[in-house]
Amino acid sequence: MVLSNLDLVAQCDGFPYHQTDPTSYLASINTYYQLRVSDHDYALGYMLPSVAEVFRGIPNWDMDDEDRILTLTGGSTAAERSQAVETTLLAMRKTGHFKVLDKWRGELYAVYGRDKELLFNVERSASPLLGVVTYGVHLNAYTRTSDGELKIWTPRRARTKQTYGGMLDNAVAGGISSGESPFESVVRECAEEASLSEELVRGKAKASGSVTYWYIRDERAGGETNLMQPECQYIYDLELPEEVIPKPGDDEVEEFYLWSVEEVQEAMRKGEFKPNCAMVVLDFFLRHGILTAENEKDYIEIVSRLHRRLEFPTL
Amino acid sequence: MVLSNLDLVAQCDGFPYHQTDPTSYLASINTYYQLRVSDHDYALGYMLPSVAEVFRGIPNWDMDDEDRILTLTGGSTAAERSQAVETTLLAMRKTGHFKVLDKWRGELYAVYGRDKELLFNVERSASPLLGVVTYGVHLNAYTRTSDGELKIWTPRRARTKQTYGGMLDNAVAGGISSGESPFESVVRECAEEASLSEELVRGKAKASGSVTYWYIRDERAGGETNLMQPECQYIYDLELPEEVIPKPGDDEVEEFYLWSVEEVQEAMRKGEFKPNCAMVVLDFFLRHGILTAENEKDYIEIVSRLHRRLEFPTL
Repeated sequence: MVLSNLDLVAQCDGFPYHQTDPTSYLASINTYYQLRVSDHDYALGYMLPSVAEVFRGIPNWDMDDEDRILTLTGGSTAAERSQAVETTLLAMRKTGHFKVLDKWRGELYAVYGRDKELLFNVERSASPLLGVVTYGVHLNAYTRTSDGELKIWTPRRARTKQTYGGMLDNAVAGGISSGESPFESVVRECAEEASLSEELVRGKAKASGSVTYWYIRDERAGGETNLMQPECQYIYDLELPEEVIPKPGDDEVEEFYLWSVEEVQEAMRKGEFKPNCAMVVLDFFLRHGILTAENEKDYIEIVSRLHRRLEFPTL
Repeated sequence: MVLSNLDLVAQCDGFPYHQTDPTSYLASINTYYQLRVSDHDYALGYMLPSVAEVFRGIPNWDMDDEDRILTLTGGSTAAERSQAVETTLLAMRKTGHFKVLDKWRGELYAVYGRDKELLFNVERSASPLLGVVTYGVHLNAYTRTSDGELKIWTPRRARTKQTYGGMLDNAVAGGISSGESPFESVVRECAEEASLSEELVRGKAKASGSVTYWYIRDERAGGETNLMQPECQYIYDLELPEEVIPKPGDDEVEEFYLWSVEEVQEAMRKGEFKPNCAMVVLDFFLRHGILTAENEKDYIEIVSRLHRRLEFPTL
């Protein structure tokens, strides 16, 4: 297998675009059910019909088969809606309806409306069932050797991890819990995942944009496949002094490699990176002049698709 | 007038999005005529009906009013199509049909198909009549003072310039002629517009991504208004040593200012920047950690809209 950079983008940003293929786009959209909340006439996510079906007839939910909309009718405040969602999901977990709920984390993700208001919180493992936008942070840690070469800290995920076990990752990455700011999240994750000191991260991590895409989950993600996972990742760069060595701080990482650009590119081509981490590496390469219009024939398309404008409200 | 960063994006990336406002999008699309070439069943641009009307009945062109498509039927090679386009445009220039043709430059822009093949070349001043994608380079020149402060070289356009006269610009910017590579274009423009040496630019200018948007021309662009101008700008950063001072090399620039981030932001808020140059500054601020998720409420939307995925084939 030899993947081009555009292949790497396409395996993560998999949902069709209205701009370039309206027929496929509309065919796909019309397969799914929209998720809405009462009194907000727009989609917060798209759900598989087989998933939406399970919500039929349950208190606090309304199924509209003609327009293919599942509406959360319970609650009129974020707290009330969150409670209604939790009650439903806990019951579904008990009855073993969905494999993704076996990985219940007890961690809440936020779902926002068009005015950037919190509409409700949802258990992290359940968010792909609802197809709502989730938020995370990814940090590129790199160093310059004494002869000026750029080298990139690249961890391999523990082979025992249920999701994307053994695949390559960005130096630090994690989901943003409801109420947490992106920067505080990256500071926390840097300590947990790479044993990087708070002082170093606060002083040197640099906000560098965001990467957004619409992922369709495959078997590597664990649980049901074809669930929708639109995501916004806040990106940070951290140039480390040569003497600072990231070390796994929990059991999520097997080992950190310090790789040249060529070593990273070789592993990318072989499909060894977790799909969304490959996107973040491409964004890093674009911002650092490693990919150029002259050496990458799909330059414009890649840049655009790394920053997809989503159909749903985002923070 | 106080413009937010999202206002600055919206004044340049003005065409509605199907993702977030399908009703406005479809209403807008259905106002215009698609431009196509024979045997290629997709749009290369969108044209005002009043502009498309002028092509009715002219040899080498076919108007389809039912599907609202203007097709270039003349020629089956890039050379033949380019010739057909030039013949038509020269005739229209002679009869004074379009004000934008008064600024005929004798410079050709390339129009590409879905396989990135050259379909035809078109006179630069005529490209907004056809609504086709155009390509350019923008370079951010900046320096770090001895106390570490980032300062940005910001030129003011000559007040005598017919387009956006007196407005603020990026250090170096220009259109890419058919057949020219982005990097060679930026080297040439750096010499012409800022008197920066070829050696310096080749050694230190860093490819930093692209900015894409769908601009709707207003009176500041000169000529007819409401013409469609979808654009791809290849972005470069150039950190200059403190002793290197850009100097206007032609009559397009009145003066270069060396401004702090705050001075640039103040001028942005006042609407003093040429619209697409404000986009490029925002992209620079995002990549350099000046705008963050914590200080910019529209962070995700701004990042996405700076990198719009266009409906048309791009290089």
